[in-house]
Amino acid sequence: MDGRIVSARIREKVGQKVAGLTAANWPPRLVSIAVGAAEPAALYIRNQKRVADKLGIAFEDRHYPEGTTREEMLAAVQALNADPRVTGILIQRPVPGHIPMKELQAAVHPLKDVEGMHPASIGNIVYNDLILGPCTAVAAVEMLRATDLALEGLEVVVVGHSEIVGKPIAFLLMSEGATVTVCHHMTRDLSVHLRRADAVFVAVGKPGLIDGSMLKPGAAVIDIGINQIDDGAGGTRVVGDADYASCREVAGWLTPVPGGVGPVTVSILMRNVAKAAELQKRHYEKQYGTPTFVPDV
Amino acid sequence: MDGRIVSARIREKVGQKVAGLTAANWPPRLVSIAVGAAEPAALYIRNQKRVADKLGIAFEDRHYPEGTTREEMLAAVQALNADPRVTGILIQRPVPGHIPMKELQAAVHPLKDVEGMHPASIGNIVYNDLILGPCTAVAAVEMLRATDLALEGLEVVVVGHSEIVGKPIAFLLMSEGATVTVCHHMTRDLSVHLRRADAVFVAVGKPGLIDGSMLKPGAAVIDIGINQIDDGAGGTRVVGDADYASCREVAGWLTPVPGGVGPVTVSILMRNVAKAAELQKRHYEKQYGTPTFVPDV
Repeated sequence: MDGRIVSARIREKVGQKVAGLTAANWPPRLVSIAVGAAEPAALYIRNQKRVADKLGIAFEDRHYPEGTTREEMLAAVQALNADPRVTGILIQRPVPGHIPMKELQAAVHPLKDVEGMHPASIGNIVYNDLILGPCTAVAAVEMLRATDLALEGLEVVVVGHSEIVGKPIAFLLMSEGATVTVCHHMTRDLSVHLRRADAVFVAVGKPGLIDGSMLKPGAAVIDIGINQIDDGAGGTRVVGDADYASCREVAGWLTPVPGGVGPVTVSILMRNVAKAAELQKRHYEKQYGTPTFVPDV
Repeated sequence: MDGRIVSARIREKVGQKVAGLTAANWPPRLVSIAVGAAEPAALYIRNQKRVADKLGIAFEDRHYPEGTTREEMLAAVQALNADPRVTGILIQRPVPGHIPMKELQAAVHPLKDVEGMHPASIGNIVYNDLILGPCTAVAAVEMLRATDLALEGLEVVVVGHSEIVGKPIAFLLMSEGATVTVCHHMTRDLSVHLRRADAVFVAVGKPGLIDGSMLKPGAAVIDIGINQIDDGAGGTRVVGDADYASCREVAGWLTPVPGGVGPVTVSILMRNVAKAAELQKRHYEKQYGTPTFVPDV
């Protein structure tokens, strides 16, 4: 399965939405916040900026020095919350240890939470109101939708129970009528669960955790792991959590790493930005009416 | 398993907390809101008031006429949000059709959401921050804790995927290390899942949905169903979703209906009220400091 094909379909629609919003004087603007060392997130930021540019979304790349305090970061987020020109706020990982990531994330206004990580955003998924969903989880589900499996009644096993990937995938699929089991490192016998699964999602961060012998023939495998391993020639290469060669022999569908869920995740982020702009526009118009004159800001 | 025993343990601690809060000039006060016909919720309200009285929690029973508009109800909730003497807001079901229950529930301030139903409350559970959890789900998990089963690695099947019972039970148990499968009416073969489960939660509303032949011997069965059925003598009686007689032969633990999860649910509601009072006290003191003089309100 090629993530770029699924991605292209999503980006086309997002581009149209962004054009409409821009024409209506609501140009979407995404602000990326990185704190401390620039290196770890640099590749991600560059890629996000490239996609945003292509779709007509303004992308502002902010860097704060290592020594920025918790209070200063929270104030920076509050200022962005209050700024009507800012559509979405994206907090790059990792942040320095003295800044509590969860608190920073929860400080983002739910209508600007384009990463879909605010507790209220997560709670809304549970309530089947998918407003702004967590990007990686939504992207993984989009990959499953791109197979021809019917989600209703599908036996799904999610391996990994993180708050921002495993659990949201589980609720998203429950809402679609799938029967979902969430497994993790404390699960007694993972292979018993895998063998009965029509679809497997894996997001653990362990290369080779799943191999073909564990799968039900024809199953869909959506691999969300991203691991850097030794390539045996002095360099490194990136692989997922599924052993690609053996899984390919057994699985009906298999997402590669890289080139699978990854590119779709960036597209979902941009879809959230466009959705957030629409929500903010609606919210504004409900409160103040449709402006007939828009000042030049 | 007797819910009254589990309940008594919880109520003892809540009573102590309430006494401490009252001594500190933060007496907890719960406001119940019922809209329209009084009959359906009357029994529940009477019972809630009785338990609140016993624990020293002030209980205000408000009734609004059938014709109250959506806007008036939202304003009533906002007024209670703003009133520092009100600790918790409890919305009795059902409300008339013209009032959107979900919107009303979401209007309750998260710190006063003693039913644990606000999207932010639900999202916090997913993030393993159990602040104010949904009462029935938390009560059901308390029943499982009262068995001697270790939750880590336990194979759990939850039957029913409602937002306020089935799904929250699933995340609560995932956080404890259980391997959880959520089944529902679209699940292909429920009995295959039940037969491998160490613990079964059922919250569907179908009497006799589960019988002993479907269970793994020794399993714990937590029955959350409440169904009124014909008692064969011209009256009605209340039963759960599990067939009690046959399940008792096979299960290691079985909660009765009535007298199982029900009484524990009311205790969890009161525990949430005490917890909400503590949170509000802390929030107030953080903003304004500890008052040295408390005016007589």
